[in-house]
Amino acid sequence: MLRFEAALARAHARAGLMTSEVAEQIASRCDVSLVNVDAIMRDAESSGTPVIPLVRQLTAQVPPSARDWVHLGATSQDVIDTALVMQMRDGLEVLIAETCGVGDAAATLSERHRASVMPGRTLMQHAVPVTFGLKAARWLSAVTRQRHELERVRRELLVLQFGGAAGTLAALGTHGRAVAGYLAEELELPLPDLPWHAERDRPAGVVAALGILAGTMAKVATDLVLLAQTEVGEVAEGAARGKGASSAMPHKRNPVDAMQALVAARLAIGMVPVVLGAMAQEHERAAGSWQAEWQAIPEAFRQSARATHHVRLALETLEVNTERMRENLSLDGARLMAESVVTALRPSLGALEAKRVVGELSAGAARSGQGLGDAARADARVSAVLDQAALEAALDPARSLGGNDEMIDAALRAWRDARGTPP
Amino acid sequence: MLRFEAALARAHARAGLMTSEVAEQIASRCDVSLVNVDAIMRDAESSGTPVIPLVRQLTAQVPPSARDWVHLGATSQDVIDTALVMQMRDGLEVLIAETCGVGDAAATLSERHRASVMPGRTLMQHAVPVTFGLKAARWLSAVTRQRHELERVRRELLVLQFGGAAGTLAALGTHGRAVAGYLAEELELPLPDLPWHAERDRPAGVVAALGILAGTMAKVATDLVLLAQTEVGEVAEGAARGKGASSAMPHKRNPVDAMQALVAARLAIGMVPVVLGAMAQEHERAAGSWQAEWQAIPEAFRQSARATHHVRLALETLEVNTERMRENLSLDGARLMAESVVTALRPSLGALEAKRVVGELSAGAARSGQGLGDAARADARVSAVLDQAALEAALDPARSLGGNDEMIDAALRAWRDARGTPP
Amino acid sequence: MLRFEAALARAHARAGLMTSEVAEQIASRCDVSLVNVDAIMRDAESSGTPVIPLVRQLTAQVPPSARDWVHLGATSQDVIDTALVMQMRDGLEVLIAETCGVGDAAATLSERHRASVMPGRTLMQHAVPVTFGLKAARWLSAVTRQRHELERVRRELLVLQFGGAAGTLAALGTHGRAVAGYLAEELELPLPDLPWHAERDRPAGVVAALGILAGTMAKVATDLVLLAQTEVGEVAEGAARGKGASSAMPHKRNPVDAMQALVAARLAIGMVPVVLGAMAQEHERAAGSWQAEWQAIPEAFRQSARATHHVRLALETLEVNTERMRENLSLDGARLMAESVVTALRPSLGALEAKRVVGELSAGAARSGQGLGDAARADARVSAVLDQAALEAALDPARSLGGNDEMIDAALRAWRDARGTPP
Amino acid sequence: MLRFEAALARAHARAGLMTSEVAEQIASRCDVSLVNVDAIMRDAESSGTPVIPLVRQLTAQVPPSARDWVHLGATSQDVIDTALVMQMRDGLEVLIAETCGVGDAAATLSERHRASVMPGRTLMQHAVPVTFGLKAARWLSAVTRQRHELERVRRELLVLQFGGAAGTLAALGTHGRAVAGYLAEELELPLPDLPWHAERDRPAGVVAALGILAGTMAKVATDLVLLAQTEVGEVAEGAARGKGASSAMPHKRNPVDAMQALVAARLAIGMVPVVLGAMAQEHERAAGSWQAEWQAIPEAFRQSARATHHVRLALETLEVNTERMRENLSLDGARLMAESVVTALRPSLGALEAKRVVGELSAGAARSGQGLGDAARADARVSAVLDQAALEAALDPARSLGGNDEMIDAALRAWRDARGTPP
Repeated sequence: MLRFEAALARAHARAGLMTSEVAEQIASRCDVSLVNVDAIMRDAESSGTPVIPLVRQLTAQVPPSARDWVHLGATSQDVIDTALVMQMRDGLEVLIAETCGVGDAAATLSERHRASVMPGRTLMQHAVPVTFGLKAARWLSAVTRQRHELERVRRELLVLQFGGAAGTLAALGTHGRAVAGYLAEELELPLPDLPWHAERDRPAGVVAALGILAGTMAKVATDLVLLAQTEVGEVAEGAARGKGASSAMPHKRNPVDAMQALVAARLAIGMVPVVLGAMAQEHERAAGSWQAEWQAIPEAFRQSARATHHVRLALETLEVNTERMRENLSLDGARLMAESVVTALRPSLGALEAKRVVGELSAGAARSGQGLGDAARADARVSAVLDQAALEAALDPARSLGGNDEMIDAALRAWRDARGTPP
Repeated sequence: MLRFEAALARAHARAGLMTSEVAEQIASRCDVSLVNVDAIMRDAESSGTPVIPLVRQLTAQVPPSARDWVHLGATSQDVIDTALVMQMRDGLEVLIAETCGVGDAAATLSERHRASVMPGRTLMQHAVPVTFGLKAARWLSAVTRQRHELERVRRELLVLQFGGAAGTLAALGTHGRAVAGYLAEELELPLPDLPWHAERDRPAGVVAALGILAGTMAKVATDLVLLAQTEVGEVAEGAARGKGASSAMPHKRNPVDAMQALVAARLAIGMVPVVLGAMAQEHERAAGSWQAEWQAIPEAFRQSARATHHVRLALETLEVNTERMRENLSLDGARLMAESVVTALRPSLGALEAKRVVGELSAGAARSGQGLGDAARADARVSAVLDQAALEAALDPARSLGGNDEMIDAALRAWRDARGTPP
Repeated sequence: MLRFEAALARAHARAGLMTSEVAEQIASRCDVSLVNVDAIMRDAESSGTPVIPLVRQLTAQVPPSARDWVHLGATSQDVIDTALVMQMRDGLEVLIAETCGVGDAAATLSERHRASVMPGRTLMQHAVPVTFGLKAARWLSAVTRQRHELERVRRELLVLQFGGAAGTLAALGTHGRAVAGYLAEELELPLPDLPWHAERDRPAGVVAALGILAGTMAKVATDLVLLAQTEVGEVAEGAARGKGASSAMPHKRNPVDAMQALVAARLAIGMVPVVLGAMAQEHERAAGSWQAEWQAIPEAFRQSARATHHVRLALETLEVNTERMRENLSLDGARLMAESVVTALRPSLGALEAKRVVGELSAGAARSGQGLGDAARADARVSAVLDQAALEAALDPARSLGGNDEMIDAALRAWRDARGTPP
Repeated sequence: MLRFEAALARAHARAGLMTSEVAEQIASRCDVSLVNVDAIMRDAESSGTPVIPLVRQLTAQVPPSARDWVHLGATSQDVIDTALVMQMRDGLEVLIAETCGVGDAAATLSERHRASVMPGRTLMQHAVPVTFGLKAARWLSAVTRQRHELERVRRELLVLQFGGAAGTLAALGTHGRAVAGYLAEELELPLPDLPWHAERDRPAGVVAALGILAGTMAKVATDLVLLAQTEVGEVAEGAARGKGASSAMPHKRNPVDAMQALVAARLAIGMVPVVLGAMAQEHERAAGSWQAEWQAIPEAFRQSARATHHVRLALETLEVNTERMRENLSLDGARLMAESVVTALRPSLGALEAKRVVGELSAGAARSGQGLGDAARADARVSAVLDQAALEAALDPARSLGGNDEMIDAALRAWRDARGTPP
């Protein structure tokens, strides 16, 4: 807010409304160390805005001859909204950096584990084989989109707020647009066509983007928590002193980073309807909905950053247990190879018959405890049309991966493009 | 969903996996009039997806020789997501058209009322004068941004879903990418690098945009409801037979379109956290969060369209009472001219002293019931520095409008650019 | 709504404001088969309420001599709110019945599996042993509370709405309270002290209770989905024709009922902030927030009923695999017995030393692949203070269940009390 | 949390598991001044819970001989949940006191203004007359219900959490229930039948009640903001130094307390779906949904208390302008008396004809600018059936108030009953 007041004084000087000397007298007192923040917060309670006590303190700080020029032509909301925009600009930088870290870590995992075969799971059941590299590539693909989106948000949605009491800049007479232009330059913010005191689609757009980023992080964290289950054991968060310990159970190592990300994502997403629901603002400036942004938007930043940060930590230190992945492929009689066997039988039997045969084998295998592989090897209908090599190929998860490699490559390429430099 | 199945058959044919004859046998049966929708809905309850009974019915419809080729390589979610994408494409077209209507109506009001002076209101109190044209220009500016945003969403977020059982397209062996490419062409949808079964940032982005559109409509509707209050009376929704009547009170004319928009906006925004909260989807395809989109996304479209539609109706038929606007300017002793008088006195008295003097006049005027104008005219401190003409100018709302005209022009220009053609 | 109009006529007759004959002429036409619902829905669009066209149709149906007496003294919102209350009363009955079914099924599982030992899991990691009976008892305990809560809601929050145009019942002169009393009797609804057109804590309380019921169902469904994972395999939803099948994978059996419950819970909970956020209603009757309840409240009922229904189906047909539970206890070297061994060592070694020793054994067991049991049996520090029988007891999950049985009994007892009759 | 640890030690002593001396050695160190809170917060980041570092610090504080007995049998969640329950108990006390203040202020306004006639407004339009006393009585009625609800919540939903690692209290062998009983006594909390680590209906119920309280406050604040509009001017918040001032406009007096309440209500209600959405907790203790309560629940308390506090301040200092109310009754040609005139004409003309006649008069009055009164006085159809006195009575708002007085009395009576003592 003090940066706004300093820039406003300089903008007035550039527009010829005050001298540079006065402007610098004001600007030089726009120093947070000269401000009594506690007093501002106390007075803000009754005035409904921190700007009134802030301007009062600032006015008292500047030389008497400059006092008339403090805050000239601005309204509280100009100060608060522009300060918010500058904070959002800083916040997006942090988020983009963290998101970059998540992307780099996902890219590394994707490349390293492009051949680490594991069960693909749908509705929490084994489906068909995938690789851990592909899973990381899917995360990476979503992160790449988020990175582009955060940059778009930063580029398009962060603009100066400057309209005066009711958006006409009337107190500046015919100089309003000129002062606004200089003010935007001083703060390195785009100048919008019109003030936007009560049209909140821009901050709503920022918060929605943060919510979607948080939701993306929650997806990754959900996968990590599920893969770290004792029964699955395919990943573990890197151990560090005390990390993930339990107060009652000495053997535990909890997926704490993923958990933190899930917590934060819930809280970040919780702010989205608060901000969108507050868009119905009254007239030229609102009574109570605008002010809800003051807490909701910073909280959305804090929690989406927390989610991203912890996903980054989790991925950077992730321990991947490829042996366990292989073991899990054989669970449930390796029935996740069913589609692959159907595919192999299809040219000879036709799809429907192939599906029927494999369905029977699969059900039989489930009843007997025998694996699908052995059931298929022993089945006359199968051996009539598939030789042993072809059957074994169909039963091999590593040879049933479809477009795994080209998808991973595509995700890595898109990330490198987004990143500008190789990860 | 049937269009997906038809296009899939043709894509297979183009990739050389089946003959064109078979493809056309399938495609020709992809006709909703051949389907028993009730039976599908009933079976979907237990199978958890409508695709299984749909494919079963479709298979029964095609000639026996083609049955093996129905739905080949696709999973339920490929069908449902792509169908959803196509519905969202249609839905966005409707929304863009309605938004266009809102923009045209706001542009007309903005142009027509650029000199209709009225009280600007902040925190529900008179602040300084504005024009109704500027108010409409502010709405228009937000609508212009929404139009661009809807077009961006349509261009960037609607892509084919095609990954097979767990995203590898394994059932198509090495042909997956080729079939996907032809399928995308058949459906005129962009082909993404990777499937996105469990990475839902795209649909979440669509729904967030709808929520923000709805919030923008709620802002306009809020203004309309407030301006239509009996005590304000500056606008009224156009009368039509029965519109806005009351079952108990013969004299009432309620702002029904604005009210419908407010209702719809609440319901649309309510879907945003449902969809964002459902982004934490498990593994390759989720159990229960994906499926929540099936109701939440169509509802977000319905309600955001309803909000936009009713705002359009309200604006297109709006009755604007400029006489009442003028009368309202004199309410409360015309104290909303206080800032203007301060501005006039500032060069002589300095800002702080000018503010102090006008503050006193204003408080005195409030106590005595006298207007601010008369109080100022009778005040020696004022007459010492302002001649009568200057004071009357300062007291004239129509001459205290700052950048009103250039802001209106800027909003109209931006709308015409967005619109492509003059409104 | 027609029941309201009929009861209103009879209430007027009982208060002496019209004859019984006229009242019955009206009441006899309050028959939904005489109404053109499509026309009402069409007109409701422009009048903003379905009551105006409904009253018009009803008036046209009654004999001319009775027409003056239709809808006398009531306002649209009286009709709609009271009709909503009656629907909520019916809806709560359905919900209570479904909840009862869930409770009975959970009670049966709890009783049957009080000795079915399985891993207790915290943060998705094995913690210490529990029984499936205890898990079901915890569900049951929550369901018992929900049942009490639904009954409280039905008893306390469902009351007549009757206030006339702005809550004073002025059109009935001095007869308002008497008519209201008879109307309440006719509809078997409690009569509140005051109308509540714009004070919505009662409907908000109903919807919050539905959201919490849905959240409780989501907890049960989450457990079911997790326990049904291929790697866990401790429960499966009962198979039925087509249930849980996959369009691509013949071997799958998806937890469809639990999934449906999760979907429905998300949608039900999504309505809670919509209704609570709409509580800020203007003046005597609101413009847009009240009307949002019309869709949000029925949807909250539908989705919470859907969640409860599917949890009931899932529990009633649940297949419990106790063998798999036993096997899972030995996963990860049975390290979930660590706390139990600490407890056994504590009297001799003290808690801290016992924890340190078991921590070492547990870490060693993890490194070597050896189980915690063998590591403990081979450790001199352990054998120095525990004889073999005591150690084996400490390593036996079935003997490390603490208050398992008394907790199960307590939950069953509370359910039987809530139920009135033995389940 | 330290109170929990102290009470736990004493409960162990009472159950005979440790000596009173050891218990008091532990309890005497459970002193927040001995704890390094910063270190706890830092370590909590990696361990995922503040309990582990807290117990470590506490253990280091107690004499060596007592160290083995610290935190015995408890798990982190037992400590955190019980501490949360105790905080909620304190928080509810604050809320009940503030709510009491709101009720007292509303009761005073209701009594004082039982004859202060003003326009009743529906859909933001004048409807029929009410009194400000009745409006305050409606607020009071809602506040009375909230007070009862907060007391119910305090009585029913706040119970001890104590289950050990996975809810069986296994570490305490057969002593679990006894220790739990003593612990509950020490902390003066009810002892539930079962632990509730992952069944969160109780905290969800608390938060829902806070959301509904906040929504109730938002209703009152909405009315205040609307009544304080410059064009309405029926109420104003009491002036205090700086309260409600504007940084740009010296004449303004903004309704700051009502605005603060609206802000706070939005934020409080925003926490409800976060907590309800987090009810789907995994297994015996959850990974990420439980932990979201740590921020969401305190925030719900803070914001609902802020909303209640500011509504109390607003009502306690409210300036009511009964003159302005009277003036507003004549706005729009006093057409809000239409229903009253219909009622007067009904016995002679019948309801439909009376409505038609008054509808015509009302429309004519609107066109001509003449008031409804004069139009009625000049109308032959009216004078044919109503003498002058009867017509004037029908046109007098103060004689068209229906059950105004008995409703106010009922609300006051219910409040006095809830309050225990006269307000």
